[in-house]
Amino acid sequence: MRLNWGMIGGGEGSQIGPAHRIAAGMDGLFTFAAGALDADPARGRDYARRLGVAPDRAYGDWKEMLAGERNRPDRVELVTVATPNATHYPIAKAFLEAGFHVLVEKPMTVTVAEAEDLVRTARAAGRICAVNYGYTGYALVRHMKAMVARGDIGKVRLVVAEFAHGHHADAADADNPRVRWRYDPAQAGVSAQFADCGIHALHMASFVLGQEAVKLQADFASCLPVRTLEDDAMVNLRFSGGTVGRLWTSSVAIGRQHGLTLQVFGETGGLRWAQEQPNQLFYMPLGKRLQIIERGEGNLSPEADRASRVTVGHAEGMPEAFANIYRDLADTITALNAGKTPDPAANLFPKAEDGLRSIAAIHAAVASAAAQGAWEDARPPMFR
Amino acid sequence: MRLNWGMIGGGEGSQIGPAHRIAAGMDGLFTFAAGALDADPARGRDYARRLGVAPDRAYGDWKEMLAGERNRPDRVELVTVATPNATHYPIAKAFLEAGFHVLVEKPMTVTVAEAEDLVRTARAAGRICAVNYGYTGYALVRHMKAMVARGDIGKVRLVVAEFAHGHHADAADADNPRVRWRYDPAQAGVSAQFADCGIHALHMASFVLGQEAVKLQADFASCLPVRTLEDDAMVNLRFSGGTVGRLWTSSVAIGRQHGLTLQVFGETGGLRWAQEQPNQLFYMPLGKRLQIIERGEGNLSPEADRASRVTVGHAEGMPEAFANIYRDLADTITALNAGKTPDPAANLFPKAEDGLRSIAAIHAAVASAAAQGAWEDARPPMFR
Amino acid sequence: MRLNWGMIGGGEGSQIGPAHRIAAGMDGLFTFAAGALDADPARGRDYARRLGVAPDRAYGDWKEMLAGERNRPDRVELVTVATPNATHYPIAKAFLEAGFHVLVEKPMTVTVAEAEDLVRTARAAGRICAVNYGYTGYALVRHMKAMVARGDIGKVRLVVAEFAHGHHADAADADNPRVRWRYDPAQAGVSAQFADCGIHALHMASFVLGQEAVKLQADFASCLPVRTLEDDAMVNLRFSGGTVGRLWTSSVAIGRQHGLTLQVFGETGGLRWAQEQPNQLFYMPLGKRLQIIERGEGNLSPEADRASRVTVGHAEGMPEAFANIYRDLADTITALNAGKTPDPAANLFPKAEDGLRSIAAIHAAVASAAAQGAWEDARPPMFR
Amino acid sequence: MRLNWGMIGGGEGSQIGPAHRIAAGMDGLFTFAAGALDADPARGRDYARRLGVAPDRAYGDWKEMLAGERNRPDRVELVTVATPNATHYPIAKAFLEAGFHVLVEKPMTVTVAEAEDLVRTARAAGRICAVNYGYTGYALVRHMKAMVARGDIGKVRLVVAEFAHGHHADAADADNPRVRWRYDPAQAGVSAQFADCGIHALHMASFVLGQEAVKLQADFASCLPVRTLEDDAMVNLRFSGGTVGRLWTSSVAIGRQHGLTLQVFGETGGLRWAQEQPNQLFYMPLGKRLQIIERGEGNLSPEADRASRVTVGHAEGMPEAFANIYRDLADTITALNAGKTPDPAANLFPKAEDGLRSIAAIHAAVASAAAQGAWEDARPPMFR
Repeated sequence: MRLNWGMIGGGEGSQIGPAHRIAAGMDGLFTFAAGALDADPARGRDYARRLGVAPDRAYGDWKEMLAGERNRPDRVELVTVATPNATHYPIAKAFLEAGFHVLVEKPMTVTVAEAEDLVRTARAAGRICAVNYGYTGYALVRHMKAMVARGDIGKVRLVVAEFAHGHHADAADADNPRVRWRYDPAQAGVSAQFADCGIHALHMASFVLGQEAVKLQADFASCLPVRTLEDDAMVNLRFSGGTVGRLWTSSVAIGRQHGLTLQVFGETGGLRWAQEQPNQLFYMPLGKRLQIIERGEGNLSPEADRASRVTVGHAEGMPEAFANIYRDLADTITALNAGKTPDPAANLFPKAEDGLRSIAAIHAAVASAAAQGAWEDARPPMFR
Repeated sequence: MRLNWGMIGGGEGSQIGPAHRIAAGMDGLFTFAAGALDADPARGRDYARRLGVAPDRAYGDWKEMLAGERNRPDRVELVTVATPNATHYPIAKAFLEAGFHVLVEKPMTVTVAEAEDLVRTARAAGRICAVNYGYTGYALVRHMKAMVARGDIGKVRLVVAEFAHGHHADAADADNPRVRWRYDPAQAGVSAQFADCGIHALHMASFVLGQEAVKLQADFASCLPVRTLEDDAMVNLRFSGGTVGRLWTSSVAIGRQHGLTLQVFGETGGLRWAQEQPNQLFYMPLGKRLQIIERGEGNLSPEADRASRVTVGHAEGMPEAFANIYRDLADTITALNAGKTPDPAANLFPKAEDGLRSIAAIHAAVASAAAQGAWEDARPPMFR
Repeated sequence: MRLNWGMIGGGEGSQIGPAHRIAAGMDGLFTFAAGALDADPARGRDYARRLGVAPDRAYGDWKEMLAGERNRPDRVELVTVATPNATHYPIAKAFLEAGFHVLVEKPMTVTVAEAEDLVRTARAAGRICAVNYGYTGYALVRHMKAMVARGDIGKVRLVVAEFAHGHHADAADADNPRVRWRYDPAQAGVSAQFADCGIHALHMASFVLGQEAVKLQADFASCLPVRTLEDDAMVNLRFSGGTVGRLWTSSVAIGRQHGLTLQVFGETGGLRWAQEQPNQLFYMPLGKRLQIIERGEGNLSPEADRASRVTVGHAEGMPEAFANIYRDLADTITALNAGKTPDPAANLFPKAEDGLRSIAAIHAAVASAAAQGAWEDARPPMFR
Repeated sequence: MRLNWGMIGGGEGSQIGPAHRIAAGMDGLFTFAAGALDADPARGRDYARRLGVAPDRAYGDWKEMLAGERNRPDRVELVTVATPNATHYPIAKAFLEAGFHVLVEKPMTVTVAEAEDLVRTARAAGRICAVNYGYTGYALVRHMKAMVARGDIGKVRLVVAEFAHGHHADAADADNPRVRWRYDPAQAGVSAQFADCGIHALHMASFVLGQEAVKLQADFASCLPVRTLEDDAMVNLRFSGGTVGRLWTSSVAIGRQHGLTLQVFGETGGLRWAQEQPNQLFYMPLGKRLQIIERGEGNLSPEADRASRVTVGHAEGMPEAFANIYRDLADTITALNAGKTPDPAANLFPKAEDGLRSIAAIHAAVASAAAQGAWEDARPPMFR
């Protein structure tokens, strides 16, 4: 049974709009039924209709959409919020309170207080508030998590995460508005590269470890002197289960296209995964040899198998990873609708608590960098 | 405007069914509107309905579907034929003659004569008969073609293609029906590994070169002695533009998961691509250094750019490649419907002529191997 | 106890001279005691003295050296012959007959008859006639051989060897004397690329398999039309133990620097090694995962361990591989001098029989290519 | 003209002894003429003689060697000190004061004060005091330095260095004396993994940048709780030219064999090199594509060309890198003996000043880690 799905933001010309529509549509689990796609109501309505949304469900803005959808018998089951960051909070809150499940683009909110409120709102409403850390949708990232959880590498001692690229390294391009806003506190907030990219690596580390960041220390650098905010950061961490963390993120690392990688080292083995070669996972059991785990091979975990679509040796990519988040949501919502307990293996999508923890970690890193690398509590107040 | 699409074959439990549905659905260009999905009519109807097909368009078999669709005003625009190989020919012929565009799974037909007839039928009907050599949908394979066409590596001297895996290497598994039929002439026809895998590599070589195989010589081996048909083959070729070809295919190459690779060497440069790392293309201009072309980088050919969905550094995979074939078909059919000339950059999907040439090449290789490696004409009679 | 060593050829400005001197000197097993290094006697004497050879042992030519050394009590134990190809045979024969051990550069001789005579001469003299196929000195190539011999991958079904580079691809450089002579029958003989490079790959395949080539078929191409001899060749083989062989060699494969690789596929596993990454060996046991064997890891074969100098994770290269040939010779000669049986693990250096078989295979491939790929006996007459 | 060379330490069964002898002997530049190889005088004398040292120059200890050599007309020109760490200082000082050139194994001394004294001693004596950071002998590391120096990547913003392996990760092996001493302050001093491995990465970063570490902050972890000293460390740095540094070192990173890598990011390009693939250097000019620089290609810097022995596509390894240090020393000493100015391209061997800076950085990192990551001055007092 397909679920009705709606989207706020992601209008014509945006990158994130098509990405969500491909991901939601890939497995035929969602029908794109309603949308308020653009800050310009007329443009948004027109675009939604061209994408096949019924005219009466092609809304001019999110309030109109909320009013229009809330009482329909065929109302959307899930609302994706892909609007400018500062508007995530009120929109998500309103839809949650009206009983919708919500998927919010990252960052979930601007402040820790907003994020804590959204966690509480979702809990009170009994609705899902998911957050789009889509990289954890990769089958082999999920397999890493399963391997760690079942003890394949023993207690994890050390995690090393990177998200380093070189796409903002050109000084001649630093004033280009497309780039400049990211390093301008007035537009980007307290952090640039760590908040934009590093946080994906931190979420992935937490996801794989099954542990939360407890404290951290940061060294931020603005390698381009014109920048106020950091374009390079190193963050040291300690996680709830005792694991030591190292996290490097950069936007001036010329020659690295994307550079999201995760290495996990436990008592009895090590694992290494890189987003640029996502269909292979490098695994070394203590005292043995490095071996290559292939997405799609016969003997993976249920979490990885259900996140896989094509046979071994064929590549899957980011669209499939992202679609796995939507598949998780479809399966979970369908189970909830039927009064059943959702499959735990479908319960891997990032949640409001993850969004909250990420925002708290960003603020902690900013504080530490400002204090010459002093150790800071990385947890949001409500989880201390 | 979404196009209506129908499918014959690809029933519940098949691998190819979901692959086509993901590919056709990925970009929201097709609505899955009709199907005859299973050899068992009741199962087929039931499955189609569960996939969202309207009950009256969930057919029991292809003849029922042809009758039901041919006179509907909203009839399907494209019919995918993913049934057992021997049935491709009559089904595709019937639908072409009734004015439908058709996408046939490979091999297009069993015999060269059938394939020639299908080429003639499609031409007479003025309809598209596409064939699913999906690997040429990869953005960087298309970029290779564009680079060759625009002369980036000069006249091409040599092409080296491989499609070698190790998935049929286990002697203990050779009698498993899942494997055995492939090497049994009664079920698989005249060739096993070359017809199943090698032909993808040959099509890809032709596609990239913009040249057809003219003659060839083959050495076939049955590395597992119980097999009648070959599980390993080397084929030497000469192409219409004078290029020398080397093509190795194997199903006993333990340690290779997929192993579809293409190397092209011209007067002024070389190129190397591998399906297991499809987002990078290795390019060496004569006298310079090896450089890595990334899918999604800013300066690729129009053919590659339109085949790309996510930003540089993020992986795309086989589903996207396959979806590019469907996107080509949607754009071409839409243009034809509007009386316009289709975009040449959308005209890259494999056609009946390609299917025909592939079947002719298979028969030529079989003949050569039987004649101790004598050189054989690789062309179908109608193209000699 | 260091052995005295002499060299013929390898004069100032040659590439091969320093390579031999580094290899012979690396482990302190040989003292460079005598030499006739240059076609110009005065230059050769002068250069030898500058390299530390005693004046009375810095000879003007090989005949003078033979006369000077044969009756010395401290005469050289091993003579390396690195002169132009056509002179290998008389020099090696003369020194063998005078009771010296000899190491001849490849190709050992020009004709099969000469090579057969050298085999007989060495046997009659009870002396070593080694041939310098130095790539088999790599520790992990030796480990491949050991794995195959002890049955780690079962009976070997298939071997795929390559030696493809792009260093003669430039048409503008084809007339450069440095390149041209290689493709000129008057200077290079019957074969260019296969004799120069392909034969290394064939020797390596035989070495690792422990099998000899029995028959072969070849397709030669001159990708640069100005060339008489081949610059690209594909050779199919059958080996004495029933293994199927595929061998590709090229000098027009722009983008490949060296490209000597070997893949071996058996009933229960596969192996892959590449000269450009010589410290890793890729091994996949049937039904398990690809694993990476590291030179220097603790559990390798005696053959690999004795061929290794630095700890795991540190690279070794071609000089060490080459030095292993000299180490084998030193250990074997020392044992023979002491009246002991040489260590079989030191008996891996290529011998006159290997040189002979290589020359026979070259002639067979040339004959096959001329006969449109007919199968030819690959064995020298004396081994049929 | 060969130089006489002597060695102290490196006795039978040691790893470092053969490594030095291979390196010193590789190019025929040194004759191994004198040695005091073992703490046990008789064993040392016997071993030296077996290695070909004249009986009267096979000494029982370093004092005997100093006495024996200092007045010989053919005395050794260079003395390598490869004894236990605590003895480096007095031995090196004594030989320097007696007018010998010296190569000291790392760490040069135990304390900063000793190291400063050695710098002053060498300067006063006008003799070379070299230190063995052998990894900077790799041809492509030297090419990186040359590229940075000539501005190929502009002003360097960021350097990221790693030296991470997993060879001390086994808890069951932690009490093995071979491992345990390294983490025991009584035997290893103030630091384990950073002093043992990390310091190589720091030296290499300084070498390539042509800048010195000015300040640093460190996070040390003992991933195996039984250890007092660190087995994992992250160090952030600022260099004299303003470059930001990140340095990770670990001995618990299971799956990494060696893991010495260097990434350098400048205003107009990035570079990446890894010791496990030392013959390739990855270079990305800003706004262009990643390209692969090969050791041995035609157009490298003089520094790289003179550090290279075999042709492109053939691997070189650690023995060649190490031999480059000795070649530098031979060329420099020969020039000094002749009263000439040494070739600057031969002046790349690490010197006492580098040894001193390394020891100062180790102490600074230890202090920072103890102070919760406070920033510390990384410079030795004499260079502040």
